[in-house]
Amino acid sequence: MTHTARDPDFEARVRASFARQAAMATLGAEIAHLAPGEVDLRMPYRAELTQQHGFMHAGIIGTLADSACGYAAYSLMPADAAILSVEYKLNLMAPAAGEAFVARARVKKAGRTLSVVTADVFALREGEEERLVATMQGTMMTVLDRPGLSG
Amino acid sequence: MTHTARDPDFEARVRASFARQAAMATLGAEIAHLAPGEVDLRMPYRAELTQQHGFMHAGIIGTLADSACGYAAYSLMPADAAILSVEYKLNLMAPAAGEAFVARARVKKAGRTLSVVTADVFALREGEEERLVATMQGTMMTVLDRPGLSG
Amino acid sequence: MTHTARDPDFEARVRASFARQAAMATLGAEIAHLAPGEVDLRMPYRAELTQQHGFMHAGIIGTLADSACGYAAYSLMPADAAILSVEYKLNLMAPAAGEAFVARARVKKAGRTLSVVTADVFALREGEEERLVATMQGTMMTVLDRPGLSG
Amino acid sequence: MTHTARDPDFEARVRASFARQAAMATLGAEIAHLAPGEVDLRMPYRAELTQQHGFMHAGIIGTLADSACGYAAYSLMPADAAILSVEYKLNLMAPAAGEAFVARARVKKAGRTLSVVTADVFALREGEEERLVATMQGTMMTVLDRPGLSG
Repeated sequence: MTHTARDPDFEARVRASFARQAAMATLGAEIAHLAPGEVDLRMPYRAELTQQHGFMHAGIIGTLADSACGYAAYSLMPADAAILSVEYKLNLMAPAAGEAFVARARVKKAGRTLSVVTADVFALREGEEERLVATMQGTMMTVLDRPGLSG
Repeated sequence: MTHTARDPDFEARVRASFARQAAMATLGAEIAHLAPGEVDLRMPYRAELTQQHGFMHAGIIGTLADSACGYAAYSLMPADAAILSVEYKLNLMAPAAGEAFVARARVKKAGRTLSVVTADVFALREGEEERLVATMQGTMMTVLDRPGLSG
Repeated sequence: MTHTARDPDFEARVRASFARQAAMATLGAEIAHLAPGEVDLRMPYRAELTQQHGFMHAGIIGTLADSACGYAAYSLMPADAAILSVEYKLNLMAPAAGEAFVARARVKKAGRTLSVVTADVFALREGEEERLVATMQGTMMTVLDRPGLSG
Repeated sequence: MTHTARDPDFEARVRASFARQAAMATLGAEIAHLAPGEVDLRMPYRAELTQQHGFMHAGIIGTLADSACGYAAYSLMPADAAILSVEYKLNLMAPAAGEAFVARARVKKAGRTLSVVTADVFALREGEEERLVATMQGTMMTVLDRPGLSG
């Protein structure tokens, strides 16, 4: 599925909003890929974000995937829109063990008000194939004319 | 719905596992309530875990709710079980703005292998009524006989 | 949670729309309870709607719960609104075996555009306690000014 | 993603179980494609399964997609396994209007106990491109040694 951005400055707009997400800095997340309707976010393993077995916490994997889904949708929104997550569903398929993690989000349907986005999250280890650890299906909302809410 | 814990030491077991979740310390989360099939987790507002508008990141709200659901289910599991999140679905109903947040998880069905748990997350502000900001429905798995995986 | 209907004729409006859902007649479903933000739908066991083991098909349980959630949300909408299901998530907790089934939907959050609704589905058998077989968490949308779409 | 069936007779096994799902006959559903980890189910428009606007009911679309996901997972299970739906989440992206509908399910992860499957549902109209109307992400369970439950 190929999407066209209606805002020619979508890339700068996505990067500026992402830079304002303090949670992404705390995760050490970076934008690894950005195109209309497509965002990959990558984060390193962080011991301070693990669950009881030393794997990345399912909720942190969900945080990375939610931001990836949000910015994939946001890349297709009008320049003056803000974005909010309506809901998401995350399946965990394997323990989130690895040196780094990448969430690859792709917009399935970009609607006027609601967008549906899916993301796969992979664990990375040097010299090994990447491993699918989680998958998300979520709904994002375009918010217009809400004073004080931008990006 | 009232549940009975089959492990009389469930409380110590839950607290020990919770203490090993480094992510909970990073969130500043504490156990506010613990009973068979019931766990409330509370965390303060943390600027370093926010999204682009300064609200708590939806994924962080999901992290708190996922741990609450997991420990609510874990309180009913046998003493030698480990727990893993299978999947969860989170609806965000209001911006996560507040001084603190509490996730209240209750087990709806405790099965031999799978448990279904729901959680409501509320925003707290001194002198105000608590406000529902999110709700989760998730599936947790009892893992037995998996060497190296405990709690 | 208690809700107030803004449309005094909400009951007639819900019943009229329900009567237009041909799928509900095929399921044999009836409205067993209706109040602002609350709808219970009941259907009998129907052999022609079963899965391979003779239980009601998970998707049919989902159909009953989705309609219950939809009409619970619709009861709180303005008189000229139409309603659409945005998404729902259904957990199946026990085989849907019984003489009849009732889905009890309650609105958790009634928003201007989106509403979040949950429903529990119980199996009924004469002389026995009802048994929880499924639970749903869904999102419903208020649609205004869409020509040709009413109810 | 390519899967290998461990049961060489997977095709006969899937078709036999599908034939026992009375709900599929009521929907008029047929297997349009079957390969290891892949099942497409197709059904015609049926007026008796519609919602209030004359579109196919979201729950019926979910029934088709749930069966497609279930049989995609079942194709990879051992010969003596039974299958149960644990949970599924369905996003509705467009009104289910069309002459026929096809749900295309693909296994994302086939685990020993749990499998994760996604499905896209398309509306078909002669002379037109197919249109994505819904997408599902679900969890299926392999059930072994449960007397009386087969297929």
